[in-house]
Amino acid sequence: MKLVTFKPAGSTPQLGVVVDDRVINLVEASDGRLPGDMRSFLELGEEAMALARSLATPALADRLGVPLDQVRLLAPILNPSKVVAIGLNYMDHVRESGGQVPTLATMFAKYPSAIIGPGDEIRWDPELTSKVDFEAELAVVIGKKAKGVAEEDAYDYIAGYMNCHDVSARDLQLEKGDQWIMGKSLDTFCPLGPYLVTRDEIPDPHNLAIRCEVNGVAYQNSSTKELIFKIPYLIAYLSRGITLLPGDVITTGTPDGVGAFRNPPVFLKHGDVVTVEVEGLGRLTNPCVEVRSGGR
Amino acid sequence: MKLVTFKPAGSTPQLGVVVDDRVINLVEASDGRLPGDMRSFLELGEEAMALARSLATPALADRLGVPLDQVRLLAPILNPSKVVAIGLNYMDHVRESGGQVPTLATMFAKYPSAIIGPGDEIRWDPELTSKVDFEAELAVVIGKKAKGVAEEDAYDYIAGYMNCHDVSARDLQLEKGDQWIMGKSLDTFCPLGPYLVTRDEIPDPHNLAIRCEVNGVAYQNSSTKELIFKIPYLIAYLSRGITLLPGDVITTGTPDGVGAFRNPPVFLKHGDVVTVEVEGLGRLTNPCVEVRSGGR
Repeated sequence: MKLVTFKPAGSTPQLGVVVDDRVINLVEASDGRLPGDMRSFLELGEEAMALARSLATPALADRLGVPLDQVRLLAPILNPSKVVAIGLNYMDHVRESGGQVPTLATMFAKYPSAIIGPGDEIRWDPELTSKVDFEAELAVVIGKKAKGVAEEDAYDYIAGYMNCHDVSARDLQLEKGDQWIMGKSLDTFCPLGPYLVTRDEIPDPHNLAIRCEVNGVAYQNSSTKELIFKIPYLIAYLSRGITLLPGDVITTGTPDGVGAFRNPPVFLKHGDVVTVEVEGLGRLTNPCVEVRSGGR
Repeated sequence: MKLVTFKPAGSTPQLGVVVDDRVINLVEASDGRLPGDMRSFLELGEEAMALARSLATPALADRLGVPLDQVRLLAPILNPSKVVAIGLNYMDHVRESGGQVPTLATMFAKYPSAIIGPGDEIRWDPELTSKVDFEAELAVVIGKKAKGVAEEDAYDYIAGYMNCHDVSARDLQLEKGDQWIMGKSLDTFCPLGPYLVTRDEIPDPHNLAIRCEVNGVAYQNSSTKELIFKIPYLIAYLSRGITLLPGDVITTGTPDGVGAFRNPPVFLKHGDVVTVEVEGLGRLTNPCVEVRSGGR
């Protein structure tokens, strides 16, 4: 299934599923048995997932569905309890930067307040940062509470996958004292979506094309087979000590081709349009807007 | 007010206020107008705060209150959207470690899944870490949505203050590749409480004694006047780019005396009892438990 969070005019966000390019409102179709909020839905577990699946039919899409292009999609998950981000996790990126192959997964946080959806503006104050960079990533969404999970069981804990754009203010992240979280967690710096694609649709998440386009030009063009620390390893590694909860997002790192490592470097500017596309997960497109907020 | 989150037997967590060493259930006392959840309460803003204040009377404590020592307190806030932690922020700690006075606030995240309450066990797997250290901190709780806040307005955005114990696995944090978030976000590594003390009770948060005791011996004994980056500065600095939401926690750093910088170093061990006490905020005491979780 391609699950979505969407916002009908004048309503709170609703949970939906895309069938034949139409969005079925799962709250409505289930007579309110399913909640409008993706995190609450995932917390309900397999029974709720099965109910959603039973409603994702062409007949219902035909009868209740709204054309996808008439719907305002939000980030599939608006309020995860945490976003765990992995850095330096693509072999081609390691080759490009001439570094050592890491022996430990680099881990940082993006705050949920940074999350936006497809089409939303990536916004920054040019007085705060002038080195905004793009990073296409495959994100994993946790489907059930995970603590001390073995690698061989890890897929059982995955609800599905999304595109993630790990927007990064390189000056804040690196130059001013290695502040990864400030550079990575500015408001609007975590576009997600357009869909949460359920696990069953992605038989092998380690063999997906992954691209980032700026204004239609591909700057990143790689494959998730370059991932150094694979998804089951990451879930096992993280859950040794940190409980992962339904709706939590793990974003797995970016391949080579980011702007900061180019010669000369390329940074995003006002009016740019960025698309992140992992094979099978749709296209996540966001315009860039510089907004001067004042003298501070 | 000393606001608390407490758990009556067989009930969901409730919002309370402590008056004369008795806890008034604010959900009950308000006939359900106030929610049981602290974050939801703070999201309701000043009107809800005023209602709570009107109910925090000795007469109601006498009539409805339960003795504090018969109540199971939880962390005052269980589910903040984020915990922003500031490192290297006490002048005495800079002097102790012989470093430069920082010109930029060091920032990292603790995941909300690490939060526990007073009396709860700090637990770790000795196969995962053998260098668990203590850090007494003053935490600030945000009371209303803050973006682009000026220093001179910052106090308006503060709901109150709590003790925070920023438990830190030094080996994970530093030795194995500078993984601050892994070392700081293990489950149970963020004790908070016992109270959220409202802003009006702490006229000057920069002149409070701050202590950490292990088994009754004071290892940290300083004052928040040693804070390098003051609270209004931090709120202005963070909110330039990151929206702070009601219930968000900013923990402001720890003074000198932590275990890792002692000669010889001191780390927590099974059976230790740690108390964090910032003047006016009560005592936050947690026992330490090593639990071997298996071969992984």
